[in-house]
Amino acid sequence: MSENNTEKPWGGRFTAPTDAFVEHFTESVSYDQRLAHHDIKGSIAHVTMLAKTQVIAENDAQDIIAGLQQIDKEIIDGKFVWSTALEDVHMNIETALVKRIGDVGKKLHTGRSRNDQVATDIRLYLRDEIDDICLKINDVLKALVALAEQHTETIMPGFTHLQSAQPVTFGHHLLAWAEMLLRDRSRLQDCRKRMNLLPLGSAALAGTSYPIDREFVAEQLGFDGVTQNSLDSVSDRDFVIEFSASASLIMMHLSRFSEELVIWMSQASGFIDIGDAWCTGSSIMPQKKNPDIPELVRGKTGRVYGDLMALLTLMKGQPLAYNRDNQEDKEALFDAIDTVKACLLAYSGLIPSIHVNFEAMYKAAADGYATATDLADYLVVSGLAFRDAHEAVGQIVHYAIKEKKPLAALTLPELQQFSDAIKEDVFTVLELEGSVSSRNHVGGTAPEQVKQALKRLASLI
Amino acid sequence: MSENNTEKPWGGRFTAPTDAFVEHFTESVSYDQRLAHHDIKGSIAHVTMLAKTQVIAENDAQDIIAGLQQIDKEIIDGKFVWSTALEDVHMNIETALVKRIGDVGKKLHTGRSRNDQVATDIRLYLRDEIDDICLKINDVLKALVALAEQHTETIMPGFTHLQSAQPVTFGHHLLAWAEMLLRDRSRLQDCRKRMNLLPLGSAALAGTSYPIDREFVAEQLGFDGVTQNSLDSVSDRDFVIEFSASASLIMMHLSRFSEELVIWMSQASGFIDIGDAWCTGSSIMPQKKNPDIPELVRGKTGRVYGDLMALLTLMKGQPLAYNRDNQEDKEALFDAIDTVKACLLAYSGLIPSIHVNFEAMYKAAADGYATATDLADYLVVSGLAFRDAHEAVGQIVHYAIKEKKPLAALTLPELQQFSDAIKEDVFTVLELEGSVSSRNHVGGTAPEQVKQALKRLASLI
Amino acid sequence: MSENNTEKPWGGRFTAPTDAFVEHFTESVSYDQRLAHHDIKGSIAHVTMLAKTQVIAENDAQDIIAGLQQIDKEIIDGKFVWSTALEDVHMNIETALVKRIGDVGKKLHTGRSRNDQVATDIRLYLRDEIDDICLKINDVLKALVALAEQHTETIMPGFTHLQSAQPVTFGHHLLAWAEMLLRDRSRLQDCRKRMNLLPLGSAALAGTSYPIDREFVAEQLGFDGVTQNSLDSVSDRDFVIEFSASASLIMMHLSRFSEELVIWMSQASGFIDIGDAWCTGSSIMPQKKNPDIPELVRGKTGRVYGDLMALLTLMKGQPLAYNRDNQEDKEALFDAIDTVKACLLAYSGLIPSIHVNFEAMYKAAADGYATATDLADYLVVSGLAFRDAHEAVGQIVHYAIKEKKPLAALTLPELQQFSDAIKEDVFTVLELEGSVSSRNHVGGTAPEQVKQALKRLASLI
Amino acid sequence: MSENNTEKPWGGRFTAPTDAFVEHFTESVSYDQRLAHHDIKGSIAHVTMLAKTQVIAENDAQDIIAGLQQIDKEIIDGKFVWSTALEDVHMNIETALVKRIGDVGKKLHTGRSRNDQVATDIRLYLRDEIDDICLKINDVLKALVALAEQHTETIMPGFTHLQSAQPVTFGHHLLAWAEMLLRDRSRLQDCRKRMNLLPLGSAALAGTSYPIDREFVAEQLGFDGVTQNSLDSVSDRDFVIEFSASASLIMMHLSRFSEELVIWMSQASGFIDIGDAWCTGSSIMPQKKNPDIPELVRGKTGRVYGDLMALLTLMKGQPLAYNRDNQEDKEALFDAIDTVKACLLAYSGLIPSIHVNFEAMYKAAADGYATATDLADYLVVSGLAFRDAHEAVGQIVHYAIKEKKPLAALTLPELQQFSDAIKEDVFTVLELEGSVSSRNHVGGTAPEQVKQALKRLASLI
Repeated sequence: MSENNTEKPWGGRFTAPTDAFVEHFTESVSYDQRLAHHDIKGSIAHVTMLAKTQVIAENDAQDIIAGLQQIDKEIIDGKFVWSTALEDVHMNIETALVKRIGDVGKKLHTGRSRNDQVATDIRLYLRDEIDDICLKINDVLKALVALAEQHTETIMPGFTHLQSAQPVTFGHHLLAWAEMLLRDRSRLQDCRKRMNLLPLGSAALAGTSYPIDREFVAEQLGFDGVTQNSLDSVSDRDFVIEFSASASLIMMHLSRFSEELVIWMSQASGFIDIGDAWCTGSSIMPQKKNPDIPELVRGKTGRVYGDLMALLTLMKGQPLAYNRDNQEDKEALFDAIDTVKACLLAYSGLIPSIHVNFEAMYKAAADGYATATDLADYLVVSGLAFRDAHEAVGQIVHYAIKEKKPLAALTLPELQQFSDAIKEDVFTVLELEGSVSSRNHVGGTAPEQVKQALKRLASLI
Repeated sequence: MSENNTEKPWGGRFTAPTDAFVEHFTESVSYDQRLAHHDIKGSIAHVTMLAKTQVIAENDAQDIIAGLQQIDKEIIDGKFVWSTALEDVHMNIETALVKRIGDVGKKLHTGRSRNDQVATDIRLYLRDEIDDICLKINDVLKALVALAEQHTETIMPGFTHLQSAQPVTFGHHLLAWAEMLLRDRSRLQDCRKRMNLLPLGSAALAGTSYPIDREFVAEQLGFDGVTQNSLDSVSDRDFVIEFSASASLIMMHLSRFSEELVIWMSQASGFIDIGDAWCTGSSIMPQKKNPDIPELVRGKTGRVYGDLMALLTLMKGQPLAYNRDNQEDKEALFDAIDTVKACLLAYSGLIPSIHVNFEAMYKAAADGYATATDLADYLVVSGLAFRDAHEAVGQIVHYAIKEKKPLAALTLPELQQFSDAIKEDVFTVLELEGSVSSRNHVGGTAPEQVKQALKRLASLI
Repeated sequence: MSENNTEKPWGGRFTAPTDAFVEHFTESVSYDQRLAHHDIKGSIAHVTMLAKTQVIAENDAQDIIAGLQQIDKEIIDGKFVWSTALEDVHMNIETALVKRIGDVGKKLHTGRSRNDQVATDIRLYLRDEIDDICLKINDVLKALVALAEQHTETIMPGFTHLQSAQPVTFGHHLLAWAEMLLRDRSRLQDCRKRMNLLPLGSAALAGTSYPIDREFVAEQLGFDGVTQNSLDSVSDRDFVIEFSASASLIMMHLSRFSEELVIWMSQASGFIDIGDAWCTGSSIMPQKKNPDIPELVRGKTGRVYGDLMALLTLMKGQPLAYNRDNQEDKEALFDAIDTVKACLLAYSGLIPSIHVNFEAMYKAAADGYATATDLADYLVVSGLAFRDAHEAVGQIVHYAIKEKKPLAALTLPELQQFSDAIKEDVFTVLELEGSVSSRNHVGGTAPEQVKQALKRLASLI
Repeated sequence: MSENNTEKPWGGRFTAPTDAFVEHFTESVSYDQRLAHHDIKGSIAHVTMLAKTQVIAENDAQDIIAGLQQIDKEIIDGKFVWSTALEDVHMNIETALVKRIGDVGKKLHTGRSRNDQVATDIRLYLRDEIDDICLKINDVLKALVALAEQHTETIMPGFTHLQSAQPVTFGHHLLAWAEMLLRDRSRLQDCRKRMNLLPLGSAALAGTSYPIDREFVAEQLGFDGVTQNSLDSVSDRDFVIEFSASASLIMMHLSRFSEELVIWMSQASGFIDIGDAWCTGSSIMPQKKNPDIPELVRGKTGRVYGDLMALLTLMKGQPLAYNRDNQEDKEALFDAIDTVKACLLAYSGLIPSIHVNFEAMYKAAADGYATATDLADYLVVSGLAFRDAHEAVGQIVHYAIKEKKPLAALTLPELQQFSDAIKEDVFTVLELEGSVSSRNHVGGTAPEQVKQALKRLASLI
């Protein structure tokens, strides 16, 4: 029996040692060491239970726990030496334990398998990461609220099709972003709830014959309960995919923010300027100040979509129960987590650095025929059906473009060419402030509504 | 003004008629007519509110409602004539309404836009489809429960890595599938809850200046409340993506069932036979009876993943608010819905036709060294550390393979070569029935546990 | 034997008729009838070969061919009645043949299977579609060339990071798009070449015992040769995926054109106006003229990406040889083809309708500090290292922004504050025309180079 | 000016230093240092050209080249210290150069930008990696050929729908895999050819005013020519996507091999055994020997699909020219390259370790009614139409299943119940060897054909 195989937790049945390439190809410790703390946490709960149910002796359990705690500390301190030959985080820790406390350490793995162990680790780990991401979402929400509070009355053109559509307040626009993030947070919380069940006790696939107490372990680890089927539990990665889908939606939202920031900061719009500290320049063009952060965030969207697609493909058509394919769940998950966290952090830092160019926003709204709908509504009040009012105003706009005038600069006789219903009072409805204030219902762009929305938001973050 | 453009709801500003190709390229009525019933439902609630808030006269509202109801009936009866020139389901219905009840019909569109209208329609529609899909999930669950009830004691090999691992009960295996579907149903319900808010009143993007009552409309349409930001509301398609991600998980699960059925029905396994009515044959090979249904379901998995990816790509980097890109949300959504429904229907029909080959399952479990873990556990009870017991049993299995004998056929002296701890009573733990019964905790494969799980499931469907 | 099963090409082995749902779920004729013409073409070549190798009699072959030709005509004329009970396009045609010419029609299927038949059909069909798409790419190229020819000297700002970077000619910008399409065409041609091999003769999976002549059939059908392995041939869908990947790249390119058109047509840029016939309006906002076509094309990008992902997922992990999963290859392929063709058609129509606003382009270039790099290069010529010149010009731009002046409006003393190397002649390098003309090498933006590029392009389309 | 910004290649225009988080978020040197060697190679060719065209002095060029060569060596020796503050591989090397040779090093960046520099680097790098991957494909092909040569006459069941279909030779089956890899290699070669053009000279986006000689640089670097449009060149990532699509197809193929190996190694099939050195075991089940390598390869398929999807999403809707999003192209590309290379390496090592279980293969073929098609063909020779023969044999198989006999064990009278055309000589066609040998045409499974195919393959690798 080669020394190599003696170290493996499964060498007995084998006659030839593992090929060196295979060792490298199949190892996961280079990335799953990230789970170490949660692995130890799970092991401590497991061994506490084994002692409680008298599968192992109480003092054995105490030795094991003490050993694990020391190893945890070593890992945190960066002193732990990881070995690729030991395959994964689980075997690295267990081997270290046996080295430290002797053969009693071998009892830790009683009544469990790496299959249910890793499933437990990922849930514990992801639960913490979800909590962290929710906090980071809150930070972006706070930054949005702080900026929006300064701009409840700042008027800008609202766009559809990137064409000037109707005037809106900038605060209202920012709160549209906030709504997206609130949904993201809510999705993560649902995901967390659904996954917060203990798979440990499923062992390799069928459960175990030891008299285990799964509810006790669940309670110790803060799970809401236990999973209900061992075959499912060792092969279930739904929570990883559900999280990645939620992460993809977060990135999609951030990509939308990014697109707008890039456009607003272009010379053509000139609506905003992002602080120097949050931009970079060009190695060839000395005048450049580029919105690199939004662009990178937008670019990283694909990365998280790719992680989701990788995980969906991974699980497609896998027969029960555990297959080694599943080892590939981790890097995609970790990448999605890291990317989302970094991008949220980027936005909570960048948003406060945004300088708003009021005048450019106002001018763009004024020039863009943005109150044409108000004019149509004015005609409806005077008795026209909406469709007919729309037709008349369409012709007025066409005339105004030809004359190169904004709507408010047309004379009353010019306007009356298109409808008798237009009277002297028409000019008040063509003003931006009136237009904005008139959209005064829940969800509308009126400053009053934005202030209401800000209050509601403040209570949610 | 060309006749063509007169029909458009936006012709006034334009001087040239729409290109014929453009009409074809931009139309959506060929597929969004599927939303007709929900569009009318939303319009009736909208117009009822307009009358209540005195934006339009009560009798106008009644005329509009009566007209819409007749159109709804016509559509259901297949008598409605759809026109591509009228672009979409909304304009087809509104135009028909005006033809039927005259100019008063034009008042329907007061205080709304197609942007918030279609967002409302999709939510109403998808809500119903989610409810239907949940019912279809229940049907599959019932079929699984019915089959599992017959097989709480049927023993088969449980697999990891498609290698015989430990004996499990077939009922237990089927309930692993049930757990997946329960999670799917739960995800759909969360998605439904999150999307069940009324976007109507957001108008084009900024809200409306008419005195609308959004809460009243929400209540009429069974929404739990109203959305909080108009810019977000007209551009939000999160619910479509969240649904598609949930649908992808359903398909992933069904692909796993499919893979197993295909393998179990292969001549090599021979575990099951699917009823003739649910199989097809070959045009060249007369002996073939193929598991086409599972294969097609497995194949359709990619389709729904593709729909999800299409929608995520669609929304990436879109600036606020509505852009025409969003028209592309419908076909992917419809395809995901149709595919999931058909595949669930397929399985609720196919499962009852499964004929189980007890003997083949039992023999495969007996031949596969599936009780090796039980032997290791036996050694642990006698005092060995698990890791050492594992090593000894690994060597026993290696010996048995060389001797071409199952474990239970080894003699006591043969076994004792590898460990003194093995005594006469070892043979009882090598039996399949004992192995299975011993895994008797929540989630374990013991018949008793499967019966408990069946009771819990019965209460959930 | 039920009448139902008698119609199936594989009923003999079965005792129960196909379930009605199964018939619906498994049928493909509703969409694969699109392959009818190529199916018949392949059948005619096959039967001609069978006669040549004396597997069937010459006059039988002639009867079959005549029958097939009549059926082809019927299908083209829209008179053929398709039956879902007959599963697919192949059985519909063969059954019609037997009805028409009697039992001799049954000899058509000698020495082949539906597995190699459909593989042949898709290749024949896709080959034609690739040729058509290449023609449509040429049409867009021609439209780009025609527009670029008018704008070899039109100056606009070139952007990086959507920030004004350096002046370029609009013709040069359009030809960047042309380069993308040239690569797309080249990729399609490679794909066509690789797939242009005959799979027929592979039969179900192992080849056939009839004395067939595959090279003869290949030659008749315009294939470059025959495939080399029967197991591979019936299960290979590489060409479908390779095409879809190429189609995804085409859509990616079109999405980039779209993004730019949408931005250029926004009021903020005002660089172009798209003809009325190629835009649509809003049902609520009378002033709107929206770039719907580019937005729809951009939106349809996700659709083709989704098709690609569907196909990759479909083939993942499929064991040899044919599995029913593969039936799902068609709809994704057809959708990718239809989408790409429609979008190319849209652009070949839309591009000629583009009205270019010279002044807006020129003004944006002049305002954007776009010649800062030229100023740095000027300093380099006078002896500074590039990095130092860059630093100095960066400070000049910073000063100019503060002073709200374009570079050319700074006085010589102002400029000399930052570098002694700046002399009177500096103002010529700050002019847009000089900047553009100076980039006069292959691939550069100088008008002379654009004219060269146009000549090269003209020779390629 | 902060020290921090002095180090940036673009600090001049900025007043505030880069935020520390931004530095971390935007840096790429942690992964793009992989391009260092190719970056230096490109720089040497660039500076050689600058001297040739007299943009810089010959001795300056020589100093720069010597400095770069020393840096290259340092990097190879692992002695180079990378700095995150210097953003990327390009600035790290250039800064090191200036430190080493003084201000003359600043002249290196004359007439180029990081935009065209990185585009050049990736092409140079990917070209080498493609060559390496093609060699690795060849290694797998050689392993397949070596194994197939031993099994030109080994009979196994060929499967469709994972059901026994017709007997094939194992060598033939292995060569089906070889065909897939040949196509993969061909796709990579097309990709290489299309991308083998020099983008350098495009500078930031518009070309440069320096008198550069792009063809000279192209020749020096082994490019087939130069790219034709500067705006396109700095933003084009087609080659990265095309490569990733080709890599996805490779992984798809390897996932198919994997699926088959996993199934063949299951106890149910028992067709093969993979060498101990290429398998791993279980930490709980002592008897397990798992096909981990094929499972991991199958799992890694999703990863490369995800990379492709990330890249397609990345480029969707990007306006010209360079945007920072593009920085995200590298990690996905590198991951796809590394994954494909490792998986090919895994298979070239694993294949020679495969032990083939002849008897199990033969028995499975004999038991599976695999010669039913031969029987149908026999009836056709005796005058029946194929469809009628198929029907008769279907009934014979149904009878045989009921009687639990293989076809060859039926008596002549039993067979004649179903068709008068069956005579004494029928039994020869029911034999596996005859069936296999009869499929004797190009692409067929006959041993003679497999030997021919092996010869052709040997000439291609």
